[in-house]
Amino acid sequence: MCGIFAYMNYRVPKTRKEIFETLIKGLQRLEYRGYDSAGVAIDGNNHEVKERHIHLVKKRGKVKALDEELYKQDSMDLKVEFETHFGIAHTRWATHGVPNAVNSHPQRSDKDNEFVVIHNGIITNYKDLRKFLEGAFALVFKSIHYPGEAVATRRGSPLLIGVRSKYKLSTEQIPVLYRTCNIENVKNICKTRMKRLDSSTCLHAVGDKAVEFFFASDASAIIEHTNRVIFLEDDDIAAVADGKLSIHRVKRSASDDPSRAIQTLQMELQQIMKGNFSAFMQKEIFEQPESVFNTMRGRVNFETNTVLLGGLKDHLKEIRRCRRLIVIGCGTSYHAAVATRQVLEELTELPVMVELASDFLDRNTPVFRDDVCFFISQSGETADTLLALRYCKDRGALTVGITNTVGSSISRETDCGVHINAGPEIGVASTKAYTSQFISLVMFGLMMSEDRISLQNRRQEIIRGLRSLPELIKEVLLLDEKIHDLALELYTQRSLLVMGRGYNYATCLEGALKIKEITYMHSEGILAGELKHGPLALVDKQMPVIMVIMKDPCFAKCQNALQQVTARQGRPIILCSRDDTESSKFAYKTIELPHTVDCLQGILSVIPLQLLSFHLAVLRGYDVDFPRNLAKSVTVE
Amino acid sequence: MCGIFAYMNYRVPKTRKEIFETLIKGLQRLEYRGYDSAGVAIDGNNHEVKERHIHLVKKRGKVKALDEELYKQDSMDLKVEFETHFGIAHTRWATHGVPNAVNSHPQRSDKDNEFVVIHNGIITNYKDLRKFLEGAFALVFKSIHYPGEAVATRRGSPLLIGVRSKYKLSTEQIPVLYRTCNIENVKNICKTRMKRLDSSTCLHAVGDKAVEFFFASDASAIIEHTNRVIFLEDDDIAAVADGKLSIHRVKRSASDDPSRAIQTLQMELQQIMKGNFSAFMQKEIFEQPESVFNTMRGRVNFETNTVLLGGLKDHLKEIRRCRRLIVIGCGTSYHAAVATRQVLEELTELPVMVELASDFLDRNTPVFRDDVCFFISQSGETADTLLALRYCKDRGALTVGITNTVGSSISRETDCGVHINAGPEIGVASTKAYTSQFISLVMFGLMMSEDRISLQNRRQEIIRGLRSLPELIKEVLLLDEKIHDLALELYTQRSLLVMGRGYNYATCLEGALKIKEITYMHSEGILAGELKHGPLALVDKQMPVIMVIMKDPCFAKCQNALQQVTARQGRPIILCSRDDTESSKFAYKTIELPHTVDCLQGILSVIPLQLLSFHLAVLRGYDVDFPRNLAKSVTVE
Repeated sequence: MCGIFAYMNYRVPKTRKEIFETLIKGLQRLEYRGYDSAGVAIDGNNHEVKERHIHLVKKRGKVKALDEELYKQDSMDLKVEFETHFGIAHTRWATHGVPNAVNSHPQRSDKDNEFVVIHNGIITNYKDLRKFLEGAFALVFKSIHYPGEAVATRRGSPLLIGVRSKYKLSTEQIPVLYRTCNIENVKNICKTRMKRLDSSTCLHAVGDKAVEFFFASDASAIIEHTNRVIFLEDDDIAAVADGKLSIHRVKRSASDDPSRAIQTLQMELQQIMKGNFSAFMQKEIFEQPESVFNTMRGRVNFETNTVLLGGLKDHLKEIRRCRRLIVIGCGTSYHAAVATRQVLEELTELPVMVELASDFLDRNTPVFRDDVCFFISQSGETADTLLALRYCKDRGALTVGITNTVGSSISRETDCGVHINAGPEIGVASTKAYTSQFISLVMFGLMMSEDRISLQNRRQEIIRGLRSLPELIKEVLLLDEKIHDLALELYTQRSLLVMGRGYNYATCLEGALKIKEITYMHSEGILAGELKHGPLALVDKQMPVIMVIMKDPCFAKCQNALQQVTARQGRPIILCSRDDTESSKFAYKTIELPHTVDCLQGILSVIPLQLLSFHLAVLRGYDVDFPRNLAKSVTVE
Repeated sequence: MCGIFAYMNYRVPKTRKEIFETLIKGLQRLEYRGYDSAGVAIDGNNHEVKERHIHLVKKRGKVKALDEELYKQDSMDLKVEFETHFGIAHTRWATHGVPNAVNSHPQRSDKDNEFVVIHNGIITNYKDLRKFLEGAFALVFKSIHYPGEAVATRRGSPLLIGVRSKYKLSTEQIPVLYRTCNIENVKNICKTRMKRLDSSTCLHAVGDKAVEFFFASDASAIIEHTNRVIFLEDDDIAAVADGKLSIHRVKRSASDDPSRAIQTLQMELQQIMKGNFSAFMQKEIFEQPESVFNTMRGRVNFETNTVLLGGLKDHLKEIRRCRRLIVIGCGTSYHAAVATRQVLEELTELPVMVELASDFLDRNTPVFRDDVCFFISQSGETADTLLALRYCKDRGALTVGITNTVGSSISRETDCGVHINAGPEIGVASTKAYTSQFISLVMFGLMMSEDRISLQNRRQEIIRGLRSLPELIKEVLLLDEKIHDLALELYTQRSLLVMGRGYNYATCLEGALKIKEITYMHSEGILAGELKHGPLALVDKQMPVIMVIMKDPCFAKCQNALQQVTARQGRPIILCSRDDTESSKFAYKTIELPHTVDCLQGILSVIPLQLLSFHLAVLRGYDVDFPRNLAKSVTVE
């Protein structure tokens, strides 16, 4: 994710200290988007052309570390005042390259800092970058050659510009300016155009009066300065020179809006942080169409039906030669391993063991040189998982990390790995990390089976399934209101059973864990095949039972379980396929889901349970993002 | 599940009342297999062909309800005597359709009861049934068209036939008769064959004298009448006409045994009686000093520190060469595998996977020729475990059975095995079978490691531990009263958590299952190492928490968990070692246990939880031996 913030004061005198404070505050508002390192670029002391320079300060850690670092810079006179100034700032969430000062932004063109830039997004094809700019980005540039000027653009990553002035603004609609040209020349062209721009095509304060511009990845960093903002569209280039903001595009297309309106934000700061959501967890649940897409971006080629996980490719031969896969995690990460165990067994044709890290350690489990061990952890810092990693390394196994945090201990200490790229997860109860871990493991399976003729049809089926997943997740999220109504019926209950089997056993474990974590109801995931061996005794009219019954090879067996539950007067709430007329006959309620390939269905079926746990917790009056007794990342044994 | 009992008296005059009593007694012996409804079919009053009819009496509830119903039938003259008669009876365990009179057995062909049948098993494809008979079944037929004749068959569900006569029997080996024909015609064919049968191919009393046949789902219903029995194989068809029993099969295959031997059961009736205890379960808990000893008897030589499991010795070389052990079971049997996994890993130095049978099948788990697979089942008939066994056999793995029932399907179909020799277990909630399964698996580990110098000290320590186990179990059983007092405090609770890790994780799973099964409280076994990854959210002042903290390598980690629980105001009830002064400081209550070697401690620590579940169930007013919704042996998927 990363966060971008930039601030231009035009004819609004500000001391360097004030500029620092604005930049740091902006970054802090964006910190939820990532927080492993940060940096700023501001003007140096000398304004003379020959001695102009840009000062860069970058620091590993949270924004607070950067803030402290700024005031340690002896060369920086905090009281010096700038009538016009452009400063850029960045908080980083590493996806490529460990978090450290060098890798953090702003990045520079050369050691003299002639051009500096902050970037939010992922350039997946970084090797081809020199040939042509692609990938996802939001960029803000600053250069000593263009003092007091700014250039910004975006594709895929969000970027908006806030404007503030005591004076009247020249327009409420900024027309888009077009010119056919090479992208390499865009900056120069913009620059030269700037000088010749008709005032009517720009946004500025009438009479060339004082104005400030704020560039940011989202509104949360801007709202405390101004509620007047312009949202940039993909491929827009925004330029500010002499206090005038103009919007440029390289090519005109028929559907383009010919101008960008200044909008007035009605939101409060709190609201913006979480979007329209009441909690980070809820926001993260609703982010899954994008986070799932980001996990696959640049890795799954839907045209050629191939999968390339860059982080594993050098070790693939060795992995293929192994005797067994051991997948190790805690909590939700362990459930992601349970969820994908069957498809991994199918695609790799290897025995797959899934292990809870603490139990794996307690047992001194035998591990051998020809084992490949996976370590799954959102934070990459989970203590038990990290200890299990060291245990396996000592025994000569090849180790693979599956994390959401580049530069984390697990990603550093493993031989190779996959970054799930779900974006920072703030809610303590993990949601989008689970679905992205799930997909990462499926992608690994697909990569392993690329050369097997007999598995080609299956692979294509799964890859087609992956492609449609973001759209299907959106459909599932439309059930939110229905699930809210269900929560209204259930929230006073003390216990809740979640039953399923096969590909959806993990769904039950994970759904029950979510409910446990944030609602404090005693929920338990139960393997439907074990029902008759004990848990069926719990079923009666009172006990709420959720059953996951999908159209997959376990369907008939799940029907048996359903019969057993209804024969005991249970009133099951069934998560089922839309076209399942059979289960609904016996259901107290149904939640109908779109159908996807069997081994991916768990991604769709877990979402209603995420939503249910959220609504239950809200109805019970609990703080969803900060459940009692739990912390986000468990860095102790 | 379900129980079948049928009784034929041939030339042995019996009044209808005597026939009723025999049928009802037979059903009561089988009641532990299921008890939600029951029925009988017997001959009506008139023996003339034209007016022959079969009288059906069926009743919802336990067998006792049926018994009362029988004597309410005005039309039934109890004193009428039948020289030859065939009566069939059934106790039902509902899997499809609610328990009521209509759904209970015998089922009939038409309203005139021309053909009646009792069935044990589950026909999952009931919709296709009219096309072809499939699924799992044991069936006994009676018809007005074939008075004094019986037809019985089985596939998947057990069925045996007892025979009693004052006279000499014609043979000890009944040859199997083959005929290629359509299954639809089997009954007719059998019928016609019957008339033409050579006496030498049947079992009968020499000279066509008086004989009685007893058909039952297991030996407990037969033993009080006779100890001479024939175990039917899958797809055998047994027919009795004119007092002659013949065995038929539709197709011959190379591996078939060409005859069925009459076997003599050694079991005694009193073995299956309750003794001085208020419930079978309680009796079986208190039997553990003996049952555990019986499991080791003749196998562990405490003088030479050697272990010899006769059933495995011919396969030991092959087992030692294997690549991995897979231990498969359901419910309590699965927990026995979890409990011994670590010591098996340690003593065999092989990777050990433990699998729930249903999940193992759902996943189509990869199994290879060099795997050794263990199948654990008290009854030896558990459907999922049996299916898993066949799955593994098909893939060329060596299969090992661990059962409590000689002649059971699992013990017959495995390559080799261990009889746990715990004695019949009647209580639906398994107790002594668990500890004996546990010990059987430990003995296997000891046998595997006999030749390893580095493991000798450890082996001796474990064997010493085994030797003292019966005495230590007696000490644990002395805690009964204390545990009763604890139950008094807890029995009104709705939920209960049981936490532990390492060797005692399985203790928690098994203890929680016991509580679930018979008290219907929502109890859950939680890995203490996973506490911070979710379940800790459940802990507060109200939620009762039982923690198992033993002096073993996990002791320090368990102390961490204890601190976490007390920091959240939890009031833990701790199962700990007698000399543990540390844990007791933080305990709300302690249950102090004698100390044994780490890998056997789970046998001692599970017993207080067995006792606790028993007392809780009694205090809550439930029938301990017949928990709602559960049956003893789960012979359906």
